[in-house]
Amino acid sequence: KRPRDYGIRFGVLPTGPLNAITDVAGVLVGQTTLKQGQTIRTGVTAILPHAGNLFQQKSPAAIYIGNGFGKLTGYSQIDELGTLETPIILTNTLSVPTAADAVIDYTLSQKGNEQVRSVNTVVGETNDGFLNDIRGRHVTKQHVLDALQQAKNGPVEEGNVGAGTGTVCFGFKGGIGTASRKLPASLGSYTVGALVQTNFGGVLKISGVPVGVELGRYSFKENLDGSCMMIILTDAPLDARNLKRLAKRAFMGLAQTGGIASNGSGDYVIAVSTAYTIPHETASSFDEQKVLRNDNVSPLFMAAIEATEEAIINSLFAAQTLSGDQNHRVEQLPVDKVVELLKKAGQVH
Amino acid sequence: KRPRDYGIRFGVLPTGPLNAITDVAGVLVGQTTLKQGQTIRTGVTAILPHAGNLFQQKSPAAIYIGNGFGKLTGYSQIDELGTLETPIILTNTLSVPTAADAVIDYTLSQKGNEQVRSVNTVVGETNDGFLNDIRGRHVTKQHVLDALQQAKNGPVEEGNVGAGTGTVCFGFKGGIGTASRKLPASLGSYTVGALVQTNFGGVLKISGVPVGVELGRYSFKENLDGSCMMIILTDAPLDARNLKRLAKRAFMGLAQTGGIASNGSGDYVIAVSTAYTIPHETASSFDEQKVLRNDNVSPLFMAAIEATEEAIINSLFAAQTLSGDQNHRVEQLPVDKVVELLKKAGQVH
Amino acid sequence: KRPRDYGIRFGVLPTGPLNAITDVAGVLVGQTTLKQGQTIRTGVTAILPHAGNLFQQKSPAAIYIGNGFGKLTGYSQIDELGTLETPIILTNTLSVPTAADAVIDYTLSQKGNEQVRSVNTVVGETNDGFLNDIRGRHVTKQHVLDALQQAKNGPVEEGNVGAGTGTVCFGFKGGIGTASRKLPASLGSYTVGALVQTNFGGVLKISGVPVGVELGRYSFKENLDGSCMMIILTDAPLDARNLKRLAKRAFMGLAQTGGIASNGSGDYVIAVSTAYTIPHETASSFDEQKVLRNDNVSPLFMAAIEATEEAIINSLFAAQTLSGDQNHRVEQLPVDKVVELLKKAGQVH
Amino acid sequence: KRPRDYGIRFGVLPTGPLNAITDVAGVLVGQTTLKQGQTIRTGVTAILPHAGNLFQQKSPAAIYIGNGFGKLTGYSQIDELGTLETPIILTNTLSVPTAADAVIDYTLSQKGNEQVRSVNTVVGETNDGFLNDIRGRHVTKQHVLDALQQAKNGPVEEGNVGAGTGTVCFGFKGGIGTASRKLPASLGSYTVGALVQTNFGGVLKISGVPVGVELGRYSFKENLDGSCMMIILTDAPLDARNLKRLAKRAFMGLAQTGGIASNGSGDYVIAVSTAYTIPHETASSFDEQKVLRNDNVSPLFMAAIEATEEAIINSLFAAQTLSGDQNHRVEQLPVDKVVELLKKAGQVH
Repeated sequence: KRPRDYGIRFGVLPTGPLNAITDVAGVLVGQTTLKQGQTIRTGVTAILPHAGNLFQQKSPAAIYIGNGFGKLTGYSQIDELGTLETPIILTNTLSVPTAADAVIDYTLSQKGNEQVRSVNTVVGETNDGFLNDIRGRHVTKQHVLDALQQAKNGPVEEGNVGAGTGTVCFGFKGGIGTASRKLPASLGSYTVGALVQTNFGGVLKISGVPVGVELGRYSFKENLDGSCMMIILTDAPLDARNLKRLAKRAFMGLAQTGGIASNGSGDYVIAVSTAYTIPHETASSFDEQKVLRNDNVSPLFMAAIEATEEAIINSLFAAQTLSGDQNHRVEQLPVDKVVELLKKAGQVH
Repeated sequence: KRPRDYGIRFGVLPTGPLNAITDVAGVLVGQTTLKQGQTIRTGVTAILPHAGNLFQQKSPAAIYIGNGFGKLTGYSQIDELGTLETPIILTNTLSVPTAADAVIDYTLSQKGNEQVRSVNTVVGETNDGFLNDIRGRHVTKQHVLDALQQAKNGPVEEGNVGAGTGTVCFGFKGGIGTASRKLPASLGSYTVGALVQTNFGGVLKISGVPVGVELGRYSFKENLDGSCMMIILTDAPLDARNLKRLAKRAFMGLAQTGGIASNGSGDYVIAVSTAYTIPHETASSFDEQKVLRNDNVSPLFMAAIEATEEAIINSLFAAQTLSGDQNHRVEQLPVDKVVELLKKAGQVH
Repeated sequence: KRPRDYGIRFGVLPTGPLNAITDVAGVLVGQTTLKQGQTIRTGVTAILPHAGNLFQQKSPAAIYIGNGFGKLTGYSQIDELGTLETPIILTNTLSVPTAADAVIDYTLSQKGNEQVRSVNTVVGETNDGFLNDIRGRHVTKQHVLDALQQAKNGPVEEGNVGAGTGTVCFGFKGGIGTASRKLPASLGSYTVGALVQTNFGGVLKISGVPVGVELGRYSFKENLDGSCMMIILTDAPLDARNLKRLAKRAFMGLAQTGGIASNGSGDYVIAVSTAYTIPHETASSFDEQKVLRNDNVSPLFMAAIEATEEAIINSLFAAQTLSGDQNHRVEQLPVDKVVELLKKAGQVH
Repeated sequence: KRPRDYGIRFGVLPTGPLNAITDVAGVLVGQTTLKQGQTIRTGVTAILPHAGNLFQQKSPAAIYIGNGFGKLTGYSQIDELGTLETPIILTNTLSVPTAADAVIDYTLSQKGNEQVRSVNTVVGETNDGFLNDIRGRHVTKQHVLDALQQAKNGPVEEGNVGAGTGTVCFGFKGGIGTASRKLPASLGSYTVGALVQTNFGGVLKISGVPVGVELGRYSFKENLDGSCMMIILTDAPLDARNLKRLAKRAFMGLAQTGGIASNGSGDYVIAVSTAYTIPHETASSFDEQKVLRNDNVSPLFMAAIEATEEAIINSLFAAQTLSGDQNHRVEQLPVDKVVELLKKAGQVH
């Protein structure tokens, strides 16, 4: 059960039908989960803005760096050109090169890309080395290609899955989470979806309730470090400049959960619009864009904050107790107790 | 009464003795409040990192731009050189040049500055044009010099004072607020202080409780736009790079209050260390700095988040209902009702 | 006589008809020159992208910071929103607030701006304190308004004029300079214009010839510090992202003259497109833009490099020997000798 | 023969003894060159700031992005933390993941790194796909480890070697180049070294002489696109902030050669100081740094400009005509003709 199923709400805007990043039409998610033996607890999560040839039909995109202690590839080209030309891949820290290499394989081998000689991979990560034998680098290119091939619309699995298989969040088992917001017609009817890979610390709040304090687990009572990858998709027609602003708001959603972006955090937000694509090659010298005016982006900002907050909490509700490498074991969030705390605080509706 | 006096808490770290930016030793604050006739509702707030000649003994500093729809002066020089060489002034949007000019007066006329021919003023603002006849530009250079002259250690007045005289926050009367955190000895015993000028919107949360929703006032039920200036002082020995990271965490504190950094926001954080100064001129070719390692900054990050969150709420508790220009009137936060809501949520201790 | 009149060329692209920033259709320049008594050697240069109400019809714009030791106002809002809403003003370092205040006057008093309560001034400067009594702050708001009122199309005066009245460049008298490039039809027929306020040092090269070395004046044989403001206008339809890239290329033009962007430099480039405007208010939620694709901007980059290089050298050719404050005296570039040197090098055509 | 052997000079500062990046004491360079069959023309160049365990003894570092159309890994962590913890690797665009993976191998397997679970690789590239079968991705991890193992002090091979094996610059064969500057005692006696991988276009100038125009090969007479990786090492004690400023000056050196940083360029500068290291772990909470004051960095800026300019030209003088994939063939710079042109221009001494 997800938090909403318990009557927990985040913010004031309505969700999309699935309350998932895939509420943004056309978006695909695929995941490969690696739980093998006692020590392998990792995986791959792939997000695609559309089902076509991503290199030939690039998507407007931007990246915001919340805290840069991470290994995300592809930052500078997206910042310079304003476009994403590959799937977004999430995995563990030391498997980033493998995943990037797989994305090159994927792109070079696609029909229509026979002449492509340059590929800007976008591979993010968090460090699952507490539960996973990360030094073993067990993710293979095939695992990445599998995630890409299985990518689909519809509900997204949350918790100990894909790149979230071995992550830890606020001292509890973290993982993959997703959520969405659908703006009312008066604000443009746009959808904003978030998908997160949660692996960070701070002082956990759920719907504002200081759960971390109540449960006695918080920074710096104990050392809760780590990172969070956040992916934001929207069907609102934003250019790269406003997508960068939108991305920053996802980081504000992380703040709402009590995340502190500690020194060791690699906190990145990748924001992509599906409203239009920019062809790799075209006869025209021009891009003709009908983009939202600055004056109209604020509701999207709020949607990104809310969806990110909820996606993070969703990951905690879905994740399950897991033991792994070096006999480490991470407990899941005690959901019943949490719901009790939220009830007391009047936050179960 | 401040929120703490009601038993409301923010985060987990202890405050300094005054719960004010002036808990950072040596820091001075001075304010000029302009409430004249029916239409003038504005003022000046000055913050000085030390009582000496700020130009000759520069302070390590950094600025983080949360949302850049504002008129802050001095950004690029602080970013390039890593030092602050003047007092920080807050005022209204259209009085920034007047205040900057006053800071030049102040600096040029100080003993020891007879040869100074370049002054990097740092003047921030928010727009008080709803309650204040901002187009009248009623702030004079003397008002700024008065604030500088009256600057002192000790408690800081909050609410409708100084640059907060005419501001509006979450639909209620905003103003100046301040708070501090004192790290325990195990985390370094450092103090972090925040001072804010609150003039922004979103979905107000107080200590996590969704007060804005409960009171029926929030974005985008109504249009709550605006800005927030945040000043962070610390006695921790940070260099400019880590001060920039610290500054970013204040913005996360704003997020914790439900601020959304809407399109029209000018949200800036200026972070300054008082642990050492950098002489304008010296015989040595070197600066010798003993600065905190990256590994040790995370508790300061959390302190900045908490102090900023609390400073913002403090501004709302202190501010009082005010009418002004064009017969506009802004109600203060209904504190009794708010305390009641927080009690119900278990957030009054 | 300008360098071209001697047969000196810069780069390979043709100039516009005036070889001036005003070759970009609609652009206006106005200047106020202050040479009074023995000590006042300063002034104001105003650049307007179009003759209409700049606040109501904003221009796409971006700012690149080459070296940030300067006092330019307006950076963050342009970076955030991508638009310029005022004239660009150049003056001396300590008169920036006065000029900014004058721009507010100008904007508030324009017909149609009766409700305007926020103005993002863009005032740049270099420090003319060697020849000018800069501490006396002799520029008044009226001087700025005069420059705005006199702004016109057509040839632009160069040398000891406006904001270049008292500047020093490569140890010689600097000043205002301008130049332009007109792309051939095969590259889009666009015009790029540059206007510079030159006040910096390094090792002067003119059309590649090491004139500074030949004349025995260069860093660090002597201490040649200082700043350069660069304004780039173009009629090419660029969005703010590509304007920022264009702005950076002007800084590369400065590098071609032997400028080194020393520690004390305030080197900024403001790039603006006249191809379209963005209305302050409109019924539509969208901006519809037909902008040049990334693939097509490189010729504009080269045009910006060349125009900036030439504008800088133009300023040196036009400036005349001047004495001023504290009996300081700065010699003009010895043009005859320079032309001789370039002839020898085969660079006079 | 290198340009200096012909009597060609760049700027006014003296070189180090080898006129190479290895003039900075302790710096090591290793290269693997792949010329196999008709189609493989690529390789690896590795630069190490010191011979010790780079992860355990990190070097202060910064990265400047000139134009971000490239795939450099490691940017955000260096920007956030100010340190380099691995060797710098240069290779071709599509082999970046392979090289990054090899750097992880290298780091994990080093004595003392048994507990390391996070490695920030710094792998840069340019696209040699004109001469090299880049889609074949012929660089293996072993090639990278070989370059690391062979890394040594002393002279650095230039031209068609390592990561420069297959590159093209200004329409001629490019490659690896290096140069250095040694400041006189009055300016601090510091050494600045540059190493470049040249693969870009524009209007070639050599020591200011417009060689590209004279030889009839320049943008946009023909389409000369591409990238340049620039590595700057110095023994001057700079912190990360001033290293970033230093890095930017290398980009100005590229501008001096006539480079235009076209849309398709991936132009990055990585600047590293060898003056001190920052231990990965230490008992102290502090870093004690004795760093150069802002006031003293300008001569280093000039040194970086000059060394980069010379390194680029050195790469062109050393590179030799090469044919490769798809029967493409790139001629070397006609050195005799170039020297003749420079003689005429008085630039051979």
